[in-house]
Amino acid sequence: MKNRISILLLISLFVCAFCYAQSDTNDGYQPSVTNQPGKEFPQVNTEGQVRAQILAPDATDVRLDIGGTKYEMTKDENGMWTGESRPQDEGFHYYQLNVDGASVPDPSTKYYYGAGRWGSGIEIPADDKEIYALKNVPHGLVSEKIYFSEITQAWRRCFVYTPPEYLTEMNKRYPVLYLQHGSFEDETGWASQGHANLILDNLIADKKAVPMLIVMDNGYAYTPEELAKSQAEARPESAFEDVMMTEIIPMIDAEFRTKANRTERAIAGLSMGANQTMRIAMNNLDAFASYGGFSGTSNYPSSDAIDTATFLNGVFKDGASVDKKMDVFFLSMGTKESDPFPGSIGAFKDMLHKQKIEFTYYESPKTAHEWLTWRRSLHQYVQLLFKN
Amino acid sequence: MKNRISILLLISLFVCAFCYAQSDTNDGYQPSVTNQPGKEFPQVNTEGQVRAQILAPDATDVRLDIGGTKYEMTKDENGMWTGESRPQDEGFHYYQLNVDGASVPDPSTKYYYGAGRWGSGIEIPADDKEIYALKNVPHGLVSEKIYFSEITQAWRRCFVYTPPEYLTEMNKRYPVLYLQHGSFEDETGWASQGHANLILDNLIADKKAVPMLIVMDNGYAYTPEELAKSQAEARPESAFEDVMMTEIIPMIDAEFRTKANRTERAIAGLSMGANQTMRIAMNNLDAFASYGGFSGTSNYPSSDAIDTATFLNGVFKDGASVDKKMDVFFLSMGTKESDPFPGSIGAFKDMLHKQKIEFTYYESPKTAHEWLTWRRSLHQYVQLLFKN
Repeated sequence: MKNRISILLLISLFVCAFCYAQSDTNDGYQPSVTNQPGKEFPQVNTEGQVRAQILAPDATDVRLDIGGTKYEMTKDENGMWTGESRPQDEGFHYYQLNVDGASVPDPSTKYYYGAGRWGSGIEIPADDKEIYALKNVPHGLVSEKIYFSEITQAWRRCFVYTPPEYLTEMNKRYPVLYLQHGSFEDETGWASQGHANLILDNLIADKKAVPMLIVMDNGYAYTPEELAKSQAEARPESAFEDVMMTEIIPMIDAEFRTKANRTERAIAGLSMGANQTMRIAMNNLDAFASYGGFSGTSNYPSSDAIDTATFLNGVFKDGASVDKKMDVFFLSMGTKESDPFPGSIGAFKDMLHKQKIEFTYYESPKTAHEWLTWRRSLHQYVQLLFKN
Repeated sequence: MKNRISILLLISLFVCAFCYAQSDTNDGYQPSVTNQPGKEFPQVNTEGQVRAQILAPDATDVRLDIGGTKYEMTKDENGMWTGESRPQDEGFHYYQLNVDGASVPDPSTKYYYGAGRWGSGIEIPADDKEIYALKNVPHGLVSEKIYFSEITQAWRRCFVYTPPEYLTEMNKRYPVLYLQHGSFEDETGWASQGHANLILDNLIADKKAVPMLIVMDNGYAYTPEELAKSQAEARPESAFEDVMMTEIIPMIDAEFRTKANRTERAIAGLSMGANQTMRIAMNNLDAFASYGGFSGTSNYPSSDAIDTATFLNGVFKDGASVDKKMDVFFLSMGTKESDPFPGSIGAFKDMLHKQKIEFTYYESPKTAHEWLTWRRSLHQYVQLLFKN
């Protein structure tokens, strides 16, 4: 309400953003799609360089910090600091600003949970950005579900994607994909920077994926007893498998119209989540018929040849049995991923070949251990699911 | 995945936060409930003072800025700056830090949209915080719904609260409350800092409110033609009423199990949203039978006596007709609100009295034009709804 000048200002901000989005001035730099409404910085050019700006009239040293690489910024006569990064990979990156030694979020971007904090993100447009673009197709819902875990004695939360037709096809039941984030991330990642909902909306509209639910929960779960261990700097044992199998899945099957059987239930994850969900899938082959591991496998971080007699309780020893049970076994990584991922995923693939277990392998071109790899991996993986 | 040390560190952060939340050291200061996981600052004491901290070893001037009032912070030998505010009102406040002239979010809090930006928030525990606390009761969903507006030619988004029983009572239909944010806020506010979902979960569990849907949309809506005017610094006319009546309500009635009639449809808003929704309700008495105005009325900012012949197209001239049509007419404000709110809301109440229109008036004790006023107002208002 406040006053008319303020409202005009706000509207001008929106219009301003609109103009910048339409124009191609500023040396080819365009505002990032992750910017807050009305913010013209940070910007990105066609080379993938990031240009950030912050007003800090009394500061003596301001830097743009993308993934730990710091770029100097320079101050103009109005106290506005501007700086550019080297070209970045296509896709989404976490970043921050450093103002006289203080590491802070860029006040101009929206915020994302990753790298262990809520902070800034920047998006370098990718050649194939259409796969996760907001398009004129029917859109599903992303619903926040709060629940109390008896196992962890704590409140937890998951997000549930339901496909566009879910609300109106009242008598239809749907298969479910359980989809997990990586380390230092949380249950918000897949439907925010991951665009899982938009990827599915687009594929369902194109009839390339069947309508399915996606359940995105938090991979950190400890009993109070195990959590106490970490105070003594011992590694507490995760209770996530127990939470998934005895709390999350029964809850989802009770509250949503699911097809509650193994051939209509898939699981996947990225990085830490790929490791976790492989263990869960292999320990519970009666519950899942499809697995997707994006940039991760349970032999991480080892690159050694896998001993099937001992690895994951020997589940892969009888390769024919695993091969028969799994409808989809999917692995992926980015071509630019660094150690130990190529080695450990490579060793896992070697084991699958040796055990004659059929799998699909996808490599995301020119991406590292980051979200564009995982968006593309999800886009590939869900097209294979629930088609038998 | 990364490495075990990192995971231990992350777990330690969670445990650390848990310890602080349980202890009562630090001069009675406790971490704010709005903090990011594992962050022990900012903290709040029983006097409502805020203590913030930020590492900024090379900075020369760092301040804590709550609602425009700046508090000096002091640096210790490690470059850690700490500062305290004067006692704040109970409830939720937007704030920021100033580092050598740069206004930035506190990197230790979660982020909220308000005051025209995504930024930090702090929560001063209120005596009646139980009304919006996360309790062991059944919880509804908050669902993100993306849709394209033909009127604004833009993508829009609303959040829809569905009560706990909505997923399983498949043949039941529900009344709907349309609930709007204030100026410089957006569709995220009510289910984030507003805790509308928890307020309803608690009231429904206590059988003090009937199960209902709440639809929270964005009050900024302009046709492309009107938006172009703001480039010329003219005030564009809002298309929000048109969007609400011809796009949002038909969409919700088509996709959710609603009772689609006026007595089962209510509308309310805070500040700018109170102003907007009063106009919408009064222009569409065939569509709504209940109205709630929290800290706002459509005669804003005037404190003059209302001329019912001209105000809102003369709708209040026939007071008996309005009184008969409205099941609930609810107004509220905080006892500490500043001009022009007491005057304009007072003039509006005077008019209702004069026209013999029955209404409920609520005053939130010791709060200003802020979210605790609006949480309490919602808590009062929804208990009156849909009970005829």
